[in-house]
Amino acid sequence: MIESLSLPVELIVRTGGVTIRRACIDDLRALMRLLSDDPISASRGDVNTADDEPAYARGLERVIADPSNDLVVAEDDGRVVGMLQLTVIPGLARRGSTRLLVEAVRVAGDRRSTGIGGAMMRWVMDAAARATGSDLVQLTSDAARTDAHRFYTRLGFVDSHVGFKYRVGEN
Amino acid sequence: MIESLSLPVELIVRTGGVTIRRACIDDLRALMRLLSDDPISASRGDVNTADDEPAYARGLERVIADPSNDLVVAEDDGRVVGMLQLTVIPGLARRGSTRLLVEAVRVAGDRRSTGIGGAMMRWVMDAAARATGSDLVQLTSDAARTDAHRFYTRLGFVDSHVGFKYRVGEN
Repeated sequence: MIESLSLPVELIVRTGGVTIRRACIDDLRALMRLLSDDPISASRGDVNTADDEPAYARGLERVIADPSNDLVVAEDDGRVVGMLQLTVIPGLARRGSTRLLVEAVRVAGDRRSTGIGGAMMRWVMDAAARATGSDLVQLTSDAARTDAHRFYTRLGFVDSHVGFKYRVGEN
Repeated sequence: MIESLSLPVELIVRTGGVTIRRACIDDLRALMRLLSDDPISASRGDVNTADDEPAYARGLERVIADPSNDLVVAEDDGRVVGMLQLTVIPGLARRGSTRLLVEAVRVAGDRRSTGIGGAMMRWVMDAAARATGSDLVQLTSDAARTDAHRFYTRLGFVDSHVGFKYRVGEN
């Protein structure tokens, strides 16, 4: 949990208001559903089976316990319809810049294109970046997600980098 | 400082041995020199001036104090010739995977192509990933760094993602 984030907060989207709040362990099944509600994530193993629940629970518990990490959800009328993870990273490069890393941005399939993702990301780029003293917000997006790339570019992100991944234990 | 990393360690490169160890505050000027010894970094403001020293010092102090971050240097005969930053990130995506993020990989201009960068990165992908329980090692590299992209691909990384950055306060 990143203490400096001021949550919960209400955001206005096209379908009305959503509440942005910290995730708790009771959100686990909803988060697993969101992660699996996407063909690219599903191809990486996020398929929402009961067998995997302990692994996701451990991940969520570690995020909640970590002072540099937060898992944030968008809730609409009691239903979790969006999520993203934030990590605050101190550093030396770019004259001692602090970075705010965004991971696992997801919106429920039936709620995409309603402005929830944009509202969450603008909150990250403005309120969350200021609250954490971040100079830079950064994320990577799978090269196949061309709609997402347009979305981030419209928000003001620059696609200046190539994102490399290495799966440990596969090579 | 990431407690679980077993450091210092000696690595063999083509020119002999280098010591991989944690950076300390006395390394500050050497790290500022390494960051500025690169045209892309210099274009982002890493130009090694005395005025910027307090900002880099704050960044280094915060990295050293943070239990999820470490700044690691390669030392050869008392000289710092390489650096990189590690961040351990718990998470939910990819079945609760832990990620090891690598930032600010730099090798001194007169020591490039001697194997120092490769030796440091292989240590990250093997020893550091195992010690931190990481399932995935990830980094982004400026799209202009085509030599670096070949280097990461040869090491086993896959360039599957696009890296987006947003500078806070510019828009």
